[in-house]
Amino acid sequence: MSIRVGMIGYQFMGRAHSIAYRNIPFYFKNTTRPVLQTLCGRNSQNVSRAASEMGWSSSETEWEKMIQREDIDLIDIVSPNHTHAEIAIAAAEAGKHVICEKPLATTLEDAKRMLEAVEKAGVMHMVCHNYRFAPAIQLAKKMIEEGQLGKIYHIRAVYLQDWLIDPSAPVTWRLQKERTGSGALGDIGSHIIDLARFLVSEISEVSGLLETFIKERPSAAENTDEKELVTVDDASIFTTKFENGALGVFEASRFATGNRNGNRIEINGEKGSIRWDLENMNHLHVYLENDSAELQGFRTINCTGEVYPYGENYWPPGHILGYEHTFINLIKTMMDSIKNKTLEVPNFKDGYLNQLVIHAVEESHRLKKWVKLSDYIN
Amino acid sequence: MSIRVGMIGYQFMGRAHSIAYRNIPFYFKNTTRPVLQTLCGRNSQNVSRAASEMGWSSSETEWEKMIQREDIDLIDIVSPNHTHAEIAIAAAEAGKHVICEKPLATTLEDAKRMLEAVEKAGVMHMVCHNYRFAPAIQLAKKMIEEGQLGKIYHIRAVYLQDWLIDPSAPVTWRLQKERTGSGALGDIGSHIIDLARFLVSEISEVSGLLETFIKERPSAAENTDEKELVTVDDASIFTTKFENGALGVFEASRFATGNRNGNRIEINGEKGSIRWDLENMNHLHVYLENDSAELQGFRTINCTGEVYPYGENYWPPGHILGYEHTFINLIKTMMDSIKNKTLEVPNFKDGYLNQLVIHAVEESHRLKKWVKLSDYIN
Amino acid sequence: MSIRVGMIGYQFMGRAHSIAYRNIPFYFKNTTRPVLQTLCGRNSQNVSRAASEMGWSSSETEWEKMIQREDIDLIDIVSPNHTHAEIAIAAAEAGKHVICEKPLATTLEDAKRMLEAVEKAGVMHMVCHNYRFAPAIQLAKKMIEEGQLGKIYHIRAVYLQDWLIDPSAPVTWRLQKERTGSGALGDIGSHIIDLARFLVSEISEVSGLLETFIKERPSAAENTDEKELVTVDDASIFTTKFENGALGVFEASRFATGNRNGNRIEINGEKGSIRWDLENMNHLHVYLENDSAELQGFRTINCTGEVYPYGENYWPPGHILGYEHTFINLIKTMMDSIKNKTLEVPNFKDGYLNQLVIHAVEESHRLKKWVKLSDYIN
Amino acid sequence: MSIRVGMIGYQFMGRAHSIAYRNIPFYFKNTTRPVLQTLCGRNSQNVSRAASEMGWSSSETEWEKMIQREDIDLIDIVSPNHTHAEIAIAAAEAGKHVICEKPLATTLEDAKRMLEAVEKAGVMHMVCHNYRFAPAIQLAKKMIEEGQLGKIYHIRAVYLQDWLIDPSAPVTWRLQKERTGSGALGDIGSHIIDLARFLVSEISEVSGLLETFIKERPSAAENTDEKELVTVDDASIFTTKFENGALGVFEASRFATGNRNGNRIEINGEKGSIRWDLENMNHLHVYLENDSAELQGFRTINCTGEVYPYGENYWPPGHILGYEHTFINLIKTMMDSIKNKTLEVPNFKDGYLNQLVIHAVEESHRLKKWVKLSDYIN
Repeated sequence: MSIRVGMIGYQFMGRAHSIAYRNIPFYFKNTTRPVLQTLCGRNSQNVSRAASEMGWSSSETEWEKMIQREDIDLIDIVSPNHTHAEIAIAAAEAGKHVICEKPLATTLEDAKRMLEAVEKAGVMHMVCHNYRFAPAIQLAKKMIEEGQLGKIYHIRAVYLQDWLIDPSAPVTWRLQKERTGSGALGDIGSHIIDLARFLVSEISEVSGLLETFIKERPSAAENTDEKELVTVDDASIFTTKFENGALGVFEASRFATGNRNGNRIEINGEKGSIRWDLENMNHLHVYLENDSAELQGFRTINCTGEVYPYGENYWPPGHILGYEHTFINLIKTMMDSIKNKTLEVPNFKDGYLNQLVIHAVEESHRLKKWVKLSDYIN
Repeated sequence: MSIRVGMIGYQFMGRAHSIAYRNIPFYFKNTTRPVLQTLCGRNSQNVSRAASEMGWSSSETEWEKMIQREDIDLIDIVSPNHTHAEIAIAAAEAGKHVICEKPLATTLEDAKRMLEAVEKAGVMHMVCHNYRFAPAIQLAKKMIEEGQLGKIYHIRAVYLQDWLIDPSAPVTWRLQKERTGSGALGDIGSHIIDLARFLVSEISEVSGLLETFIKERPSAAENTDEKELVTVDDASIFTTKFENGALGVFEASRFATGNRNGNRIEINGEKGSIRWDLENMNHLHVYLENDSAELQGFRTINCTGEVYPYGENYWPPGHILGYEHTFINLIKTMMDSIKNKTLEVPNFKDGYLNQLVIHAVEESHRLKKWVKLSDYIN
Repeated sequence: MSIRVGMIGYQFMGRAHSIAYRNIPFYFKNTTRPVLQTLCGRNSQNVSRAASEMGWSSSETEWEKMIQREDIDLIDIVSPNHTHAEIAIAAAEAGKHVICEKPLATTLEDAKRMLEAVEKAGVMHMVCHNYRFAPAIQLAKKMIEEGQLGKIYHIRAVYLQDWLIDPSAPVTWRLQKERTGSGALGDIGSHIIDLARFLVSEISEVSGLLETFIKERPSAAENTDEKELVTVDDASIFTTKFENGALGVFEASRFATGNRNGNRIEINGEKGSIRWDLENMNHLHVYLENDSAELQGFRTINCTGEVYPYGENYWPPGHILGYEHTFINLIKTMMDSIKNKTLEVPNFKDGYLNQLVIHAVEESHRLKKWVKLSDYIN
Repeated sequence: MSIRVGMIGYQFMGRAHSIAYRNIPFYFKNTTRPVLQTLCGRNSQNVSRAASEMGWSSSETEWEKMIQREDIDLIDIVSPNHTHAEIAIAAAEAGKHVICEKPLATTLEDAKRMLEAVEKAGVMHMVCHNYRFAPAIQLAKKMIEEGQLGKIYHIRAVYLQDWLIDPSAPVTWRLQKERTGSGALGDIGSHIIDLARFLVSEISEVSGLLETFIKERPSAAENTDEKELVTVDDASIFTTKFENGALGVFEASRFATGNRNGNRIEINGEKGSIRWDLENMNHLHVYLENDSAELQGFRTINCTGEVYPYGENYWPPGHILGYEHTFINLIKTMMDSIKNKTLEVPNFKDGYLNQLVIHAVEESHRLKKWVKLSDYIN
């Protein structure tokens, strides 16, 4: 069996998804084979070249046309955030399975419409919170589900980058609210929200603060000296209560100098704790309260080799995986979802619930008070 | 010149202060010599034995008497928090210099009265935020003051312990509001508030959440099976805005399993960042934006040896200091303060401003909204 | 232009090479395209299935036949060590370019014959010391070549694994001298010899010790309870002098419990030092003596992003690479070598010089004294 | 009971011993109390000032006189290495207990004479390998003795400093063979030899290499521009076999740029491993093979708090100790030795056996071959 894919977009995320499609048959035997059918982009010449470089059989310039094609089973949306809703809903209506980059949408309303569309159409869907698929995170999930950490008291997570500290960095689409929805909060904050939701429980209340440190920047447009407004947050900090009673502390920033890609999470439970850092993503740090008193300490576990999640598909112990393998595992999961007709996570429901947190943080910021997530569900 | 000290209390903090008084003349040549004159405690036998063990010349059971003695220059208060105000005010009125453990008081009002008392009396005063005196923190302070980090955008600090995760741990005075004022917030949260205030700037607004995970515990009293209420926070999380525009994220917990004494702070500025962790307190981690592009990274600096703060008083490079040396440096500073008649930091003003943050966090928690610190100054 | 590859062997190394051939066109634009033409193995059914799974167009059971085929440009040898010499020499004589896994041969004499064969044939050749191609190692190389570390005084390197500590692990070909040549020394010790030679200089003298801790193990053959002798070293330790006057300390072991794949190297020069660890292969640790006195410390540099070697071909800063990318970079280099008709490193000359060190270590062990490498060159 | 101490020397080691004598009664209740009776040095004015600063009751300029005094129970020798033998032997003959800094002597012969002298006199004796007394090392010792690591296969240890990389550093007594015996080997190499002997077993054979990278340096004498020869090793590397069959790799250097005080040891056994680093001396890293397969990893154990060796005498968990506490624990042990009339370790026997290793390394270097330690015992 094979799944024919049409993908819209071919920048950073397009490359990450493409390498995943390419390599799934290599790492996973007897799996459903993705076919890199068509790559879609607005500029005919560019998309054609990208298709050739990344191994796509053909290219297309109109996504509306692509989603109607009979030789496409799965639509993969890696275009800017403001385009997600329209494409995903149309694809679902055309009976296609859908993979969509995160954040699912630029508004809570759109996220809800997208979820309703895929559910109505009965297609398989997935939102690309790829970090769930790091083997170390999968091990953490397993440990928490098995109760190895006991009742969870604390979640603290940061996603820290520093690519905006230079005031001369221009206003790209990622800094424009109408195209991206939110800034650090939606782009990277959504990843740590997802990890917390995945590993622990749903968030019930939040108190948030958004900040734009540098409010005007050079325009990305050519031939102009004018400054443009930055309309999204450079950084967001928020505290939360979880439904299970745990406390959460979150921070997403593009101004955390020296932090290139610092997605870090620590979870403390009554019986143990885990720590993880994306920049050393192969290692999980685990503390177990029931170790003998004088031998208690965080263990640094190299989650490679066959005893670990996905380990038998890769290399022997100590031969580490990289960033792209999180996508390989994610898209492998989507292949299984389609093959087995079982909805896997993270899907659009996760995308919607993630957007609900983002929305609540923004509302909390606006109102300068704690807000309940339940107030925004209708 | 010598300073004759009378100290009230002889538990953990009493030991830490005593070792400092003992060793100052050893490490610091030509300094004012503290004389361990009298140790004060309620139980005559116990205080007498403690005095002998820790090197105090005599002991006393009534602090009221001790603060009136002519052969005492400095009163050091290391008794439980609810006793600080009365003793400190009386000591100041008696013309004694005063050192007081943190948090300065159990209420903002008491902290203010204490500050007024020492200022009116014209005595020297200090509050024991000893972690300021780690050489690595002094180096961080110097770097920030010199502008090496540029404008500060982010402060994130945690103080994580785990000694309360066992539900059978009893209700000591540290879990009773009337005796301690607050829980994790005042006990350990106050230390990270102090580091942030010391290193960056004053906090202007806060949003806080306090939580008591285990609300009843065994009584510490003997011969009873009854449970007692825990009346302070097990954990506190709070977000802040600083007067200089920076964002702060703080967390203090006694339920952070696996974290023995995790006082950690990271500060990000436009030109660089620093990281510090009390459990490896000799090292400062420094990132400098103006390092050449391919050699940018956090440096691990072992802050021992003569080029570092206090370094010439201790050991050659790489021979690390421990916890108690923070107190040695703190009390050395107080000795200088008295000798030179110059008020050093952290003094009762810092203690008061620290209490203001604690108070605002508690108010924010009560009101479930952001509050301004300026609203609580009168 | 494309290069048609015939590869012999399809176990661990075969997989690593295959993923490299697959992905080179994806990561490197405008590069010579490897064509996965034929996979060769003795068992027809197994090799056919492996070819299909890993993306090879066809399979073959006789390497003698494959190396004569006109539709093959490059022979890649990933079969057991004792087969390297015969195949490589025949391939060279057939005018094929050759890639060979390390160690190049099982004896110094074979290594020399292989080098002579490729040189005589005028074909391109490479030996697979893939760790040279980690971006962090490439950065270290650049720094050392530019003189940023000054004169080198010390090299210390370990390659520590622990997969033999279980006495019930059976005698595979890697434990049999006639098939593998040497044990830990040639298998993993050769990698750290290569890193030292690459980064610093040639070794001139060695003193070595080899040890086989568990001398008999279960046979890998089925239906037997007999034990078999382990005829290679479980661990090797050796000290060296380098031609440039530096001292080297090396250790390779399969008995270093808790070390999964601990290939670690530290180099100290008069102006600076570097440290690297394969299990965190994306980071280079750099110390520079001319940093200001109070800011000296090892920097942890995440070598991802476009300012680093190969960085523009992969992901943005902080998105790490994995084990297989070292092979992608290595085989990309071989593609360039063939395209440009320029011999790149590490080639068979490196393989031979590496074998010379191995040989000298073994001789030193036998003689229980220091030996000069020059005594074994003829 | 109290022990009256006379100490010869008051530089770095003199300070370290003095702080230990000062603080033992504080940390250890009900212990034998050392009395800082007399400090001895050649320069009357300097020794008198040092005595006053460090808390010694009196000073003396002739050690020959001091060792005869009836009010002295224990002679502590912290003067340069070449003075150890004469003083220690005379002190023993005078019936005094003796503590001596390491290395015990400058020659194997002297070390033997010293050992014979103390044994003949029946006094208590100790050599100051203080790092044994770090709580983390004591925990490692306990684990190994209990068999928690099983049979030991590997020891690797380095002691790396960098204070000689500057060619303008002058020739002090530590660089002159007649006064110091050996260079890096005896000064810091002896510490790692001691840790290995203490934790594992005796060494049986060695192969060593000594190197002096910079052979001439400025004289330390004033008013001269002449260079002086460096007559000891800047760095030493040696491999060993232990009596229990384990392999050892050792390196001591003063040219390891960026390493301030890098005393690091790793031990691998069939059931587990430990790692330790003096610059983070409070932490022991422990790997246990019998942890469940997916949770195997090195634990970082903060060896503070009452469950750890010496922990009940210091601070609560997570409040770290520093360099000087190793001396406090060492001298406390000597106090117990004298009080209980039981010889504790490390004593002059350890000093002698350590010197035997040093001697064998030097002989191996001279002969350029492996040597057996047993050949140098007579």
